Amino acid sequence: MPVETRTFTVKSKTETDLIDITQEVQKAVSSSKIRSGTVTLFVQGSTASVSTIEFEPNLVQDFKDAMERIVPSKIKYRHTETWGDDNGKSHVRATLMGPSLTVPFKEKKLLLGTWQQIALFDFDVPARSREIVVQIVGD
Amino acid sequence: MPVETRTFTVKSKTETDLIDITQEVQKAVSSSKIRSGTVTLFVQGSTASVSTIEFEPNLVQDFKDAMERIVPSKIKYRHTETWGDDNGKSHVRATLMGPSLTVPFKEKKLLLGTWQQIALFDFDVPARSREIVVQIVGD
Amino acid sequence: MPVETRTFTVKSKTETDLIDITQEVQKAVSSSKIRSGTVTLFVQGSTASVSTIEFEPNLVQDFKDAMERIVPSKIKYRHTETWGDDNGKSHVRATLMGPSLTVPFKEKKLLLGTWQQIALFDFDVPARSREIVVQIVGD
Repeated sequence: MPVETRTFTVKSKTETDLIDITQEVQKAVSSSKIRSGTVTLFVQGSTASVSTIEFEPNLVQDFKDAMERIVPSKIKYRHTETWGDDNGKSHVRATLMGPSLTVPFKEKKLLLGTWQQIALFDFDVPARSREIVVQIVGD
Repeated sequence: MPVETRTFTVKSKTETDLIDITQEVQKAVSSSKIRSGTVTLFVQGSTASVSTIEFEPNLVQDFKDAMERIVPSKIKYRHTETWGDDNGKSHVRATLMGPSLTVPFKEKKLLLGTWQQIALFDFDVPARSREIVVQIVGD
Repeated sequence: MPVETRTFTVKSKTETDLIDITQEVQKAVSSSKIRSGTVTLFVQGSTASVSTIEFEPNLVQDFKDAMERIVPSKIKYRHTETWGDDNGKSHVRATLMGPSLTVPFKEKKLLLGTWQQIALFDFDVPARSREIVVQIVGD
């Protein structure tokens, strides 16, 4: 069973940032020799996640607001005592959502819904450069 | 043939609805030519998720009540301004939980726990017909 | 041989317990005949999850505190009426986070970040012995 590993880099802005990576993922699948299978997106790091969302600005803001309610910024996190970093909330959010997403594809086309985009959720506080692993497994 | 793609349709009721899809998934695995591997369940749409739960009515209600506390219905979502839809909460819930689940199987048997069922979590407000992709990869 | 199934057992302590299983997963990948692909970790049971975290004691405690705020212990769960078990919260937490994680590997090395460990999140109330399925698919 063939396997192809690709990576690409995404630059995020300061504080919580959502980035639509659907085109990058589709490009990796289109240019591989594998016609059908699964693509696993995995972010190397413990303060970011991958999921799907209807990527429109109002909903993106709704999601940020909801995450601020679920895992607030303005409380104390013990992790700050370990490294002096103010990103305890970022770690908790990323662990809750998880670092990976597996998407099926057929005849080199991602089997997404019409209003369903793949996004990187960067929860860290400083702007960062993120390495995304794209693992394509199939036939 | 190491990859097989199946789909099935599930009809959900109005507001948050959980549906046990374990039998449908086991049927797809049983009828495929692949003996061992992984099955990825992926819901095409951005207001539903797939996860596992002990599927008994009291716990299903507990989960709905918990999600209502985590991502409440009775607050304002900006997404409503985009489409006039009252399903901002549905999108946020689905993005938080994710659209997919990967389950291992061996000798055509899903490797689930005894009280662990696979469920579709339809968070949308109207009743819907949902297409679930079943991507079977293995040997 | 494109699919290999391994299992290992983890003993958790009473109440919410996080256990670093990175070494066990790397060992399974290292000893398999598959060089590159994906490893799916799946916990058989409906009160535990698998995700990644920077596994340091302060952050582990931050995560436990956050989960206690998101899905509190001190409220009523109907599931208690079904079995008399006081683990309604445990089920809700595990369903929210999901039972599985898929990690890519290349040349037998897990493609994790430097401060990113794979952990079992056992949300159940009593101490338990947990069976983790390690499904390795690749080439």
